[in-house]
This record gives sequence, structure tokens and C-alpha cells, in this order.
Amino acid sequence: MHPFGATGPLVAALDIGGTKIAGALVDADGQLVSRARRPTPAGEDGETVMRAVAEVVAELRADPRWPAAVAVGIGSAGPVDAAHGTVSPVNVPGWRDFPLVPRVAEAAGGGLPVVLTGDGVAMTAAEHWQGAARGYDNALCMVVSTGVGGGLVLGGTLLPGPTGNAGHIGHISVDLDGDLCPCGSRGCVERIASGPNIARRAVDSGWRPPAGTFPTAAAVATSARAGDPLALASFDRAAQALAAGIAATATLVEIHVAVIGGGVANAGPLLFDPLREHLTRYATLSFAAGVEVVPAKLGTDAGLVGAAAAAGHALRLESFTSVG
Amino acid sequence: MHPFGATGPLVAALDIGGTKIAGALVDADGQLVSRARRPTPAGEDGETVMRAVAEVVAELRADPRWPAAVAVGIGSAGPVDAAHGTVSPVNVPGWRDFPLVPRVAEAAGGGLPVVLTGDGVAMTAAEHWQGAARGYDNALCMVVSTGVGGGLVLGGTLLPGPTGNAGHIGHISVDLDGDLCPCGSRGCVERIASGPNIARRAVDSGWRPPAGTFPTAAAVATSARAGDPLALASFDRAAQALAAGIAATATLVEIHVAVIGGGVANAGPLLFDPLREHLTRYATLSFAAGVEVVPAKLGTDAGLVGAAAAAGHALRLESFTSVG
Repeated sequence: MHPFGATGPLVAALDIGGTKIAGALVDADGQLVSRARRPTPAGEDGETVMRAVAEVVAELRADPRWPAAVAVGIGSAGPVDAAHGTVSPVNVPGWRDFPLVPRVAEAAGGGLPVVLTGDGVAMTAAEHWQGAARGYDNALCMVVSTGVGGGLVLGGTLLPGPTGNAGHIGHISVDLDGDLCPCGSRGCVERIASGPNIARRAVDSGWRPPAGTFPTAAAVATSARAGDPLALASFDRAAQALAAGIAATATLVEIHVAVIGGGVANAGPLLFDPLREHLTRYATLSFAAGVEVVPAKLGTDAGLVGAAAAAGHALRLESFTSVG
Repeated sequence: MHPFGATGPLVAALDIGGTKIAGALVDADGQLVSRARRPTPAGEDGETVMRAVAEVVAELRADPRWPAAVAVGIGSAGPVDAAHGTVSPVNVPGWRDFPLVPRVAEAAGGGLPVVLTGDGVAMTAAEHWQGAARGYDNALCMVVSTGVGGGLVLGGTLLPGPTGNAGHIGHISVDLDGDLCPCGSRGCVERIASGPNIARRAVDSGWRPPAGTFPTAAAVATSARAGDPLALASFDRAAQALAAGIAATATLVEIHVAVIGGGVANAGPLLFDPLREHLTRYATLSFAAGVEVVPAKLGTDAGLVGAAAAAGHALRLESFTSVG
């Protein structure tokens, strides 16, 4: 019999965001063999948020397959500080330099290694292990949604960076005189290309959502598909900013593919077509010009699969990651 | 006696630019124990340029210490294609996909491994081995001169990228609606911050060089030191673009230091003071905010020292590189 039982070794994965705290036991095929979930009490104090995390962990520990867990992987909304094991998620104000790693280690009963990365790095680990970046040695993976996040695979290896935040493409400036971003900089990719900014720009230009709907990026997409020029222009501008950011990444670190997931990517050709067109204008040097842009393959489970893969990467659990 | 003679093992280094072809035998302390040099016949056909390279190699081979050479390292003006061993330097039109690696291997008598990298990567290897990036595991090194080039050290290791061009910060766009760059993109760091662009912008704004001097970045620096507001404004704009590019790099790959060399960096505080100030506005996320900006330590020999170090990195000659 397999030393870890019928499932083989497992990684206990946590995906911590401003809306939900998801947990799963992930097997070496990337399958979620057990799940747990709580809403994030994002407005509460830090201990209340931690209690929700501990409940998710306790639910996983109650699963009969828990003894096969060899590590805990956490992907968290950022900023994270993997070097110190702390997190300060923008949308969870009760957590500032919160010592998530030791607290999760304790909740897990002690004895298991705990690996923390940012959610962009986790999503990247997932897409490289099981998704659209599989087989690529140099890749950028992105989530374009309420915010814009990302991560990098370079030379076949996940690049978490010293603090687990590498690949933070949403906050590079592509418009140095542009609009102020909540991060304090100007003209960030996120400030132009995130869903709320797509909607805001469309509204500012005079677009109005279809009757009975809210002014969201999805509503802008609906209008754009119907040919509304203001809606199309807002998507085009988002695509242009994403293209400039992807081109900058390709020029700086020689990626060959950019994988894009998240709610805004669900707009499909409305986003991808102008993005690929703009990219030919920004990624001009020979070694950067061929970068492909493809949709992400993993859906909402990418955070959990990726938290497991990032732990596999850090701990060199070869069966949990394709990354060296 | 040491198996390689009194000097220990050597690397034969070549630094190939649009103006000169320099060569040296480099020892494990980074000392140049023998030198050779030819002007680059940049306007001539490819074979004529190659003849100048072969003459430099022949002069090195005539040195009695040549038998201690264990490798040849080439740093070349780009674009280079290290994967195919070819170069296509912008300023040497006779070389397009020129098979420099096999031709240099032949000129060196066969038998020695030849490692090609871009000149930005080579300069970075030099500064990490012997200069201002020494001791840093995550660094961006840049040359700001006629052009803007660069290279990266990540996780303690030089990152040449698959084709030897990684770190090409001069051609990331920080102004997506900005002026057209000769590379085809818009608002590139080089298009704003290179010496010729500092001079051009000053002239366009009404600045005139001191009597009897040409309108160069050095002349703009002279005027700026005398308090000329147009000259100061042009340097400030260059500093702003460099800051946005350095911030983008810190945000994407978590560097802790940016080392800047090249003629424009000789302007000293005129460049570095506004650059550090702008950087606080663009590098805003916690993990990127602390990036230091320091002048390069190695001078014109950086290309040769770096070609040797990059070869040492690629071939794992531990005595020739601090990079893993």
C-alpha cells in the first residue's frame, strides 16, 4: 500500500482573498480531494479573520485523508511578505503584518511546513503545473479582474521573489504622467485595465449601461459586443495598457507566453484581439516580438491548485509541480 | 606550480561595440592581464568586421599566457541571439544573424567553449562580480549613454534569458502614448533618458549649448549645474523615466538595488538626486519601495570583465563569478 494511503501525498492548500477563504487537500494530479470554505470577515479585526482560516483548516483536518498531507501551501491576497511569514492584504484591513504562517502552522497541528506566496504567484504556479503555461519555461501569468495581478516562470522555474510578490504587473506604470493609482504611483496597468477602471472610463466618456444593469466591465462588454463605440474604446484602452505591460515584461525577462485569466479575460476576443494587435506595436525587439497571449485554463480553483504547486516548488516536492 | 601557470586559469574576453572591439585575458581576480583593441569598421561588410575581431583574438593568442585560457566570453552590442550564437548589432549593419560564436571559436583555434551574451548582461555580470552590485542577490544594472541597456541578477544568479537579452530596460515603454522610438514602440525609457534624447529635448525646449560647444547631454549637464531651468528640466524628465523603469523592474522581479553606469550617469547628483526622488513616487508597494540607486563602480573595462564573468556563469567556472 502507498505510504500515504490511496491518494498518495497531499498538500493542504489555502486561498485567502477579500471575499472568501477557500481550502482543499490537493493531490499530486492537482485534484481537490476535499474542500472547505468560509466567507472572509474582511471588515472584522484580525483575530476574527484568523478564526475563519482556522475553521477551514479544522475542516480539512477532519477529513480522513488529512494524515497524507505533507505540507501547507497558502496563496494570499497581497502584499504578502514570504520572508517574514506575514500578510497585509489591501482588502483585509485587520491584517497588517499579520503572522499568518506561524498561525496556520499552529492551526494545522504543528509539524507541517507552511509555504506562503502571493495570489498572483500561486495562480502562475497553477497554470504552469496544470494549465495554459504548461510546457513553457518562460511565462507571465496574469489575473485581470477587480485588480490586476500576476506571476512569472523564468528558466523553467517559478519566481516568487524574496517576498513572494514577484510578477506584480498590475502596478508597473505604463503611463508615467497618467492618472493617480490608489497605490500612490501613476498610470499603473491596473489603473487602466482592471474591471472597475474599464467601467469608470466608459462612464466618464458618456457610455451608459443597458437598462436595468449596473455599470460594470461585464456591462461594458455587453455594449461593446453590440457595437457601442464608447464601450469598445474603453476595452481597447485596457488592452493597450495590458499590451504595454506584457511587452515590458517580455523585454525585461524574455517570456514566451502571457496567460490571462480573471473576470475581464472572460470578455474573450473583445479583450484578446485588440491586446494582440497592440502587442505588435510595443513588443518590437526580436527576442520579445513573438510572445503569445492565451487565456488561462484553470478557473476559480487556480488559487488552491497554485498554493499547492507553489508549496511543491518551494519544498521541492517533485510530484506537485512541473517547476524545477 | 599552478596547472595554469602563474596567473591561474584565464578567460579570453571580447567586448564588441559599434565603435571598438576590445579583447583581454581576464584572470580570476577580474584583472586584465593582456589587452588588444581595434576600431570597429562598423560601416564595412560583415567579413571585414569579423577580420578585426580575428585580429584582436590573434593578438591575445600571441600572449604567452594564452594557454591558460579555459573559455572565450563575448559581450556584444545587441540584439544578440545566444541560443543560435548569432548577433545583429544595430550599429553594425554588416552583421545580421552573423554567426559570431562559431567564427570566434575558429579564430581561437578551436577547442575552447565560447559564451555569448548581450552587453547589458555582461556589464551586469561585471558589477555583480566586482562592482556596485556585489553582495546583492537581486539587482538591475544599467548603462545610460547613447542608448540605455541593462541586465538582471535574480536569486543570486545572472539572468541572461534564453537569447542573452534579458534586462533590456531601455526598450520598455513607460509612456504608452509617448514619442515613437526607433525600435518601433512608443515612450521607451531610452527614448526619454538616453544622452542624445536629453540633448534633443533641451534643444526643443529652447536651450542652447554654451558658446563653442555642441548640444550634447554633457553640455546640458554643464548648463544645468549653472542653474539653467531648461537644462534642469530635461535631466529631470530623464530621471523620471529611469525611475518609472526601475520601479517597474522592482515591481516585476523584486530587485533591491539599481546600479547605473554610462556617460549620462557621470552627471552624478544631477541625475541621481531627481531619480531617487521620482522613484519614491513610482516604487510604492512595500516590497519595491526600498530599492537603492547607486552609481556603477567599473568603468570602461566593465564589458571585458563582464564577458569573462558571464562566461564563468554559463560554464560554472566558480572562480570567475559570484553568481551561482
